[in-house]
Parts: sequence; C-alpha cells; structure tokens
Amino acid sequence: MTPQELKSLVRTIPDFPIEGIQFRDITTLIGNGEGFAATVEWLADRVSASGAQAIAGMEARGFIFGAAVSAKLALPFLPVRKSGKLPCDTIGVDYALEYGSDRLEMDPASVTEGQLVAMVDDLLATGGTACATAELLRKAGARVEHAFFVIDLPDLGGATRLKDCDVAVEALMEFEGD
Amino acid sequence: MTPQELKSLVRTIPDFPIEGIQFRDITTLIGNGEGFAATVEWLADRVSASGAQAIAGMEARGFIFGAAVSAKLALPFLPVRKSGKLPCDTIGVDYALEYGSDRLEMDPASVTEGQLVAMVDDLLATGGTACATAELLRKAGARVEHAFFVIDLPDLGGATRLKDCDVAVEALMEFEGD
Repeated sequence: MTPQELKSLVRTIPDFPIEGIQFRDITTLIGNGEGFAATVEWLADRVSASGAQAIAGMEARGFIFGAAVSAKLALPFLPVRKSGKLPCDTIGVDYALEYGSDRLEMDPASVTEGQLVAMVDDLLATGGTACATAELLRKAGARVEHAFFVIDLPDLGGATRLKDCDVAVEALMEFEGD
Repeated sequence: MTPQELKSLVRTIPDFPIEGIQFRDITTLIGNGEGFAATVEWLADRVSASGAQAIAGMEARGFIFGAAVSAKLALPFLPVRKSGKLPCDTIGVDYALEYGSDRLEMDPASVTEGQLVAMVDDLLATGGTACATAELLRKAGARVEHAFFVIDLPDLGGATRLKDCDVAVEALMEFEGD
C-alpha cells in the first residue's frame, strides 16, 4: 500500500473533541489488516535504520503501534504510562497541557545506561507529550534521538518543538490545515 | 524461547494493588525483545489456527499484545476502550467490578456481520472483562469463540466463566496460588 492509500484509511471526525478541531482517527487504519501491517512495516523500517535498541510507546494509542514494531523487530518495548498505572517503582515527569498538567511514568529498570531508545506514537500535534517522554527516558539513562509517528499535523509545530529537544522526527503522513 | 523461559521473564510484585495479591507484571517480559517476539509468535499461531478474521484488544495492556499479533498476521485490530476514549459513535457494555462497575466501548462500524473475532489480552483473572468484551463484540455483530492470554491465573476461575460465555481459552502460561 502507498502512503496515499494509507492516508485514505484515516477517518476524519469533525469538531472532536471541541468545535473546529478535525480529529484524525486511526481506528479505521488499524481496522484494515493490510493497512495496519503496512503502517507497522513503514515504522519498523525507520526504527531499524535509526539503530534504536529499544522502543518507547506512550499510553494508550502509542502502545498499538509501538508494541507492534517492537515485536516485529524483537526489540524491547518500554511502556510510558499515565500516573499510577505501573505496579513497579517508577520515575515520572510532569508536563504542561493547554489547561493544567499531566504526568508520565516508566519503570527505570527497563532502560540500560546509554541505550538508544526510539519513540513511536500515532500522532504528532504540538509535541508536548513526546518532549516530556524524551526527558523521562533520558532521566532513566537512555539516549533519545528519533521519534516516529504515523501522522504529523505540521501546522501545530511539533517537529520544531521536538528538534529543540534534540529529537529528529519522521512521519508516514501529514494532514495540513489543523 | 520455551514457555518456561518466557514465564521466568514475568516479574512478581508482592502486595500490589492490595496486600496479599501477587501482581504478575508483564513489563519485564515485553522489555525483553526476544521474549516479547516469542510471546507474540505463540499468540499469533493460536489466533491463526482459530481462523479468526480480526482481533480485539482491551485497553491498555491488551493493546500491546493484540496489536502486535494483528500486525504480524495483517488482521484488523479492534480496540476495546474505556468509556469516552473513542472519538466516533460507539456501542458500549457495562459490567460489574468487585466494587462498582465499569464500561467498555467500541466502534460498531469496525465489525462486519458474522466476522469471527478473537480476543487477545495479557492476563486472565476472573474473566469479567473478557466476558463483557465478548458481549460487546457480539452486540456489534461479531462471532466470538476464542480468547488468548499470555497469563492465566486458574485459581480465579476465568476459563470456566468464559466457557459459560461460549468462549474457549488458551494461555501461554499459568501462575497458581493467586
């Protein structure tokens, strides 16, 4: 499947979660077996070329793509979770949202010092979550140089923000005008 | 890797979430690249043999295994989510927890009438979530005959409960005494 065909599998839901937002919904992409497999193959090729030794995925949609890529490449999968979800000792990072703040946590024992970890997620918007994740992974001792997304919304400036966090971005598809 | 080797990769966390519970933690299993890939291969072989045409995974840990199996077999992945997470029109099912209740939702458009859907999740305890998921998938028009788990806690009777819901269970490993 071409990137254009994969893009056509993404459903747009108008005015979600608030009026004026066109929500790009990957439910229909992963609901197409060939489309999902082709998306994971694209991500796996990029992760492999980056030399990453492990993959971090952010709860919950990041688990869908990150874990599939990890299993395909037989690389460790590091789940980055919302606060209070992991049963083990954790380290965390707080980050600002538009209104309020949120916290991400991970198991520090899952990273070895200097391990190169790539981030995989479904969608890059402002880059806030991905920058916080990079900070968290580095706190655990990882090197973080690359993030791979299915969808980039370039108008929201996420790639620039991630560049400022020393993370290079690649995305399978873009939606302009968001 | 043998099932016994895979079992040794699961970490046990005593007294989580409450005193007396031995929490079986898959973070360390998925944090081992070869172990994660072997686990997904085991699940994929069973799903394939079941003739399933799509895979349903339950938020959030079920996404990790279910999506990896879906991508490997190029089968549609149907995310079953907590209430209010999906951006589309949904159908839902309420089910009882030990204290209170919870709700699962899915996109009814992601299932075709009569489609055989297998459930994949990390852990089978009492079977309450899996039974509710089977009910939800059937409400959407799916046939549900099989559920595949990484871990079964047989003392909690989940396989029996799922049999009562007309769902056959296979699990890669068991932990007794839970």
